[in-house]
Amino acid sequence: MSPSALPEADPDRMWSTLRSMAALSEGGPGVSRLAYTPLEREAHALFGTWMTAAGCEVRVDPAGNTIATRPGRADGPAVGTGSHLDSVYHGGRFDGIAGTMAAVEVARMLAESGTETELPLRFVAFAGEEGARFGQACCGSKLAARLSSRRELDERRDRDGISLAEAMNSVGLDPDLAVATPWRPEDWSAFVELHVEQGSVLETAKLDVGVVDLISGSTRLELVITGQASHSGGTPMRGRADALAAAAEAVLVAERIALDPRHRGTRATVGRLAVEPGSITTIPGHAAFSLDVRDVDADRQRRTVTEIVGRTRDVCRRRGTRLSVRLLADTSAVVLPDWVRNEVTASAGTLGIPYRVLTSGASHDAQMINRVTPTAMIFVASRRGLSHVPEEWTDPAQLAVGTDLLLASMLRLDARAAREPARAAGPHTSDREPNGAPV
Amino acid sequence: MSPSALPEADPDRMWSTLRSMAALSEGGPGVSRLAYTPLEREAHALFGTWMTAAGCEVRVDPAGNTIATRPGRADGPAVGTGSHLDSVYHGGRFDGIAGTMAAVEVARMLAESGTETELPLRFVAFAGEEGARFGQACCGSKLAARLSSRRELDERRDRDGISLAEAMNSVGLDPDLAVATPWRPEDWSAFVELHVEQGSVLETAKLDVGVVDLISGSTRLELVITGQASHSGGTPMRGRADALAAAAEAVLVAERIALDPRHRGTRATVGRLAVEPGSITTIPGHAAFSLDVRDVDADRQRRTVTEIVGRTRDVCRRRGTRLSVRLLADTSAVVLPDWVRNEVTASAGTLGIPYRVLTSGASHDAQMINRVTPTAMIFVASRRGLSHVPEEWTDPAQLAVGTDLLLASMLRLDARAAREPARAAGPHTSDREPNGAPV
Repeated sequence: MSPSALPEADPDRMWSTLRSMAALSEGGPGVSRLAYTPLEREAHALFGTWMTAAGCEVRVDPAGNTIATRPGRADGPAVGTGSHLDSVYHGGRFDGIAGTMAAVEVARMLAESGTETELPLRFVAFAGEEGARFGQACCGSKLAARLSSRRELDERRDRDGISLAEAMNSVGLDPDLAVATPWRPEDWSAFVELHVEQGSVLETAKLDVGVVDLISGSTRLELVITGQASHSGGTPMRGRADALAAAAEAVLVAERIALDPRHRGTRATVGRLAVEPGSITTIPGHAAFSLDVRDVDADRQRRTVTEIVGRTRDVCRRRGTRLSVRLLADTSAVVLPDWVRNEVTASAGTLGIPYRVLTSGASHDAQMINRVTPTAMIFVASRRGLSHVPEEWTDPAQLAVGTDLLLASMLRLDARAAREPARAAGPHTSDREPNGAPV
Repeated sequence: MSPSALPEADPDRMWSTLRSMAALSEGGPGVSRLAYTPLEREAHALFGTWMTAAGCEVRVDPAGNTIATRPGRADGPAVGTGSHLDSVYHGGRFDGIAGTMAAVEVARMLAESGTETELPLRFVAFAGEEGARFGQACCGSKLAARLSSRRELDERRDRDGISLAEAMNSVGLDPDLAVATPWRPEDWSAFVELHVEQGSVLETAKLDVGVVDLISGSTRLELVITGQASHSGGTPMRGRADALAAAAEAVLVAERIALDPRHRGTRATVGRLAVEPGSITTIPGHAAFSLDVRDVDADRQRRTVTEIVGRTRDVCRRRGTRLSVRLLADTSAVVLPDWVRNEVTASAGTLGIPYRVLTSGASHDAQMINRVTPTAMIFVASRRGLSHVPEEWTDPAQLAVGTDLLLASMLRLDARAAREPARAAGPHTSDREPNGAPV
């Protein structure tokens, strides 16, 4: 099929699909559809309904990922696409959903145009991508990529103390089976995830789409500072052990280190902070906060964390407070294989879509799935770079451009997989070479 | 009655009384018995029962203050004592309760010894002294002293948006009547409040008791910083509008100003801080926090507040965030009249109790009641200076020493009121001279 004969994505239909998903929310502002909740499963069921109507066979894997398969002329390793359906607390309508709805649109375009592929295609909605609930991102894709242990599922807990394993059980998933049955590399030839940029590189460059070469890593910690609560009037300024004042220094230490010129590309954020006892007239005795350090350089990422924790320890020593630190999650940056990316950029060239190659600051299911099969990522522009907030926005027309590129890339990868079965089949990486190019 | 013939307070009985009160709590850790809750009213009812048993006539004024009157040989202006029965969230067993239980013990000692006084004595449990729930301290005593407007009772709201007036209504009190019927100065000759120190001056000096000359004022604000929430990975460090980072600077600005040598005696505390949306992977778009500034110098107190708010405004301007400020409460320091204090110190001399004259950093009902009748304060030592926390502790033997001094002081003031009716009767202050000595 020549590029000019390709069907085109329908922006209005995509916007309507996105809105149907956004309606599944715990309540405003924005969208709250947390990992491994009944609401997330409802979104997966809706996705499944749409994919069945588009002629796919739908199944849910033990990790909760919903996988829709569209048969090809022959059986064999499939080209896949997809993203996630969960959100952060009070997030937006696009993060994750844009890519899953692009998958729905691709399936519909293929069904309507009666397009046949050489090998099967697969459309995936990943479960539990956001770290908002359990502190760990990409739960479903990590399980698919054999990157989670059974113990981890017991240890990660949400605000209410519910473990990831318990949450999975509560929505009818089997954590033991999820760990025991990851995806098989031989079932896949390549994967392309479409996602909103969550930054403003594309908007600034006046581009609709980008192609990702590198996904930042992320180290997440919980820090707890214990001081001495006491009366705000009776206790002199000197000799206080104010846990919030110590935490305030830590927040600014993290920011200062990340802003240092030697740290260009490092991002350090304290997104959560809770103070106890939380009374106007009591000096805080307890302050608990999160730290999220992202970097494209895995070594610098760990050095930054060590430096922030070390300096916070100094602050606590000086202030007579105690510090305890707990590691919530730790992933290194991932270089996506250039040959898959080159198929995407070649498709953009054929379609006449201008693009830029850029880095992702956020984590994505793509970086986990790249451990199963060579993976590429397409970004669509985010207005003002905003994400994880209700104001998150991508113009449906831009989303449609990204979806056209996604379809073209999948067809090109499908043709290549049929032409070069040796390249496409089998695991492309080993544990020793996690980011290695295929042989 | 000669001092040597005075009955003595019973530490074991006082400890048992204190424990009965501590049992009335919403749940641990510590004691949570908030202003204008059914639990606070239950504590007042228990106090009333004890006072009735000790031969007093008990009534509740429209502000919720429970007043027990013990008749004297003649009718006339009474010497009063008392403190409050509410607590902060997760507070201790002594703040307020110690003074109210000292009142109970004095009434019991008088009843058991058959001691007669010249004029009536009154024992008071004040309502809603802690600012923890509504941001305003001394609700009951302010109403008694005609220092609260009806509008104020509608405007002060708790975390759940319930106004002070609504809370009063919900426990059967009438806010309109409370504003309309303050205490009458002609009913009182003097007042003495016993309270725990909530600081460590007495412990350091190895003294059981102190006598207060000055009560700090307090200005309380709520500050809200609005920035821009966005993804912690996608958003570069430069160009962020992180509301928590701005709030962290404000916390440290407040501390630094209060620690400045020109501010000896100023105390600035951020006791409450809440971050929205509160997700590990989202830059905070919203941070709300309290500021409590205390000072013995009323002008410096207001200058300090202006300086902290001004510098926080600068921080917000530099960081591209917005600041809004709301005044929660504002009281000036109060100099307690020396002639009542001198009666207390003379009583200590007669009993052979060593004491120190000291300043109170905390607000007290005494500073409000001083607007109705000349008032003194007795402090008993606090272990490690801790207060507003479950670890709050005063040795019952020290509390008994304070109670002995309270009884002696009340009897001395009663004798003086009978001897010098002109001095004792009528209002001692006007609105123009709030802290003036009596004529």
